[in-house]
Amino acid sequence: MYARTLDKEMSGSIIATRREVADLAGVSEATVSRVLNGVGPIKEETRIRVLDAANQLGYVPSNLARSFARRKSGNIGVVLPYIPKARLFSSYYFSEILSGMGNTVREQGYDLLVLFRSGEETPEYESFFRMQKVDALVVLGAKDEPGEREALRKLRESGHPFIVVNQHFDGENFPEVDVDHEEGSRMAVEHLIDQGHRRIAFLNGPLTYSNSLDRFKGYEKALQQRGLERDDRLLFEGNFGRRSGYAIGDEIAKRIEEVDAVFVANDRMAVGLLQRLRELLPDQHRFPAIVGYDDSDSADICVPPLSSVRVPFYEMGELAARLMLTACEGPSNGSEVLKEHPRYLLQAELIVRDSSK
Amino acid sequence: MYARTLDKEMSGSIIATRREVADLAGVSEATVSRVLNGVGPIKEETRIRVLDAANQLGYVPSNLARSFARRKSGNIGVVLPYIPKARLFSSYYFSEILSGMGNTVREQGYDLLVLFRSGEETPEYESFFRMQKVDALVVLGAKDEPGEREALRKLRESGHPFIVVNQHFDGENFPEVDVDHEEGSRMAVEHLIDQGHRRIAFLNGPLTYSNSLDRFKGYEKALQQRGLERDDRLLFEGNFGRRSGYAIGDEIAKRIEEVDAVFVANDRMAVGLLQRLRELLPDQHRFPAIVGYDDSDSADICVPPLSSVRVPFYEMGELAARLMLTACEGPSNGSEVLKEHPRYLLQAELIVRDSSK
Repeated sequence: MYARTLDKEMSGSIIATRREVADLAGVSEATVSRVLNGVGPIKEETRIRVLDAANQLGYVPSNLARSFARRKSGNIGVVLPYIPKARLFSSYYFSEILSGMGNTVREQGYDLLVLFRSGEETPEYESFFRMQKVDALVVLGAKDEPGEREALRKLRESGHPFIVVNQHFDGENFPEVDVDHEEGSRMAVEHLIDQGHRRIAFLNGPLTYSNSLDRFKGYEKALQQRGLERDDRLLFEGNFGRRSGYAIGDEIAKRIEEVDAVFVANDRMAVGLLQRLRELLPDQHRFPAIVGYDDSDSADICVPPLSSVRVPFYEMGELAARLMLTACEGPSNGSEVLKEHPRYLLQAELIVRDSSK
Repeated sequence: MYARTLDKEMSGSIIATRREVADLAGVSEATVSRVLNGVGPIKEETRIRVLDAANQLGYVPSNLARSFARRKSGNIGVVLPYIPKARLFSSYYFSEILSGMGNTVREQGYDLLVLFRSGEETPEYESFFRMQKVDALVVLGAKDEPGEREALRKLRESGHPFIVVNQHFDGENFPEVDVDHEEGSRMAVEHLIDQGHRRIAFLNGPLTYSNSLDRFKGYEKALQQRGLERDDRLLFEGNFGRRSGYAIGDEIAKRIEEVDAVFVANDRMAVGLLQRLRELLPDQHRFPAIVGYDDSDSADICVPPLSSVRVPFYEMGELAARLMLTACEGPSNGSEVLKEHPRYLLQAELIVRDSSK
């Protein structure tokens, strides 16, 4: 209804109508829309003809005309935690997921709208839809906190398509793309036990992330399966940053006689730990075996090359984006795809290198 | 005018007006606009009150109302080259610039719209403004090619705020944020000469990038200043990827007796080169000195730690974003800021590590 009202308003003398653009370009009005909204496959030649016609007539395809006609922004939103001064894009984790998303949405003619969320406030995810900035939302870097649960519940109730990546909310049934970090961690620790190590320290990340909890479960499971007892003095916690791994290197070096091996929850911390241990134990006497997690670029650059659990981050980004595009383009907004299979679980893989041989 | 027409249309029974939202929230209409457009500093308490009121009344701040009122999308666009399957966000170069931009725009309440451009087509930058997807545009990864020049000229004529990062177009006077790569490279090569090296090979990137040309000028300048002659058999070209550095390692290893040192145009290629040379020259007999470029994360992880030219990518992203925000918010669109000082040149810095000592 409003689309019609608007078209009438717009057919005045100042602004050309879509009809006039279509006539001049010799195409249908639907084609004009598709070109100007930048969606769907369009021949380059047709695209140029339509844009030329729109330019000649001074036709302005306003966002309202677009959104009232289709209620679409052409953008897939991606929420990132906002940490002032942090170089989020530079972390392997975020950059790989974003690369996978970016390539996928681009191939469907969508753009990626990067939305930062401050850690303090309860996020207002719904408002991005209300303001028609996005057609679907991918939430990265979420933590299990009451405000986050509340915000995601509201979003689910609103019926807008969204998905949470690499974070599980127990008991919520949110659509999620995640990785089996429990099994990934179990494999890593089992490998260390197979290498003859018994006193295996664990440097984990903060437990507000479900993937840290999953890693802990996997660590424990491997010990249990092999009849080893957990020693809580061998449990350490960092913040996933290289410096925190470096700092914990001091503690581990002091107790090096009690430690055969270290399983580290991401490569950044493992690289910092390796660096510090090389400084403090230069004679390589009793250098512990180390397995990292993520299999990032740095794993095979550092010395010794780092064994690591490979996580298909790029594929997670691809899958999340593809699910969102399906939800945007599908019948009745396609969100039933997400309701049927709310949790997509990808597999991790252990890559063994010199650091644990 | 259209804003008024629209407000009248919208004051019907179905959709609440901005006035009604303002009354219920006890704020001015201007405040309602600012909250719903997500711009400017707003007290969190006020923001929540306005959003609550808008929710209660079912007020939909449509993009048209927004754009007719202010002609703004609230998005800063960033154009990236589109290379299928490439993991662009994972490159240090793009991820640092994007981090700097992301943090800066977020602090002003803007979002970042990532726009991919395919290599083949002549980019239609203007259409992002016509479709009101962005208020300003930052162009990354551009090459000196006729289609690109043409597209940027059209954009400049349109008067929309834009800026090109890390690429200079000779004779065009486009607004640019760049780094003095000539001086950065001169310093690197001078350092190698100071270390007693004479036959200094140069592994450069493709010359369609102005920064490759600048590096070549700096390389030449350092040789000239020290009275050394350029030997074209010591010039190599890669594609900035690690594999191309690895591949050129074969060529350099074959002629290792003629090579004292290698200056490499980025760290990725330098890491590949180092890796290959370590494989082919295991006895470290005549291992050449190496200086990389970018001072990326990998520089001090690899062995030996890599000397490198530090480029303030993060700061480039910050500056580009700040200039765009000024242009968006300033008087008469603020683009005169860009006209007066079209080229911002930041300085690089040489970081010496073991690879060239």
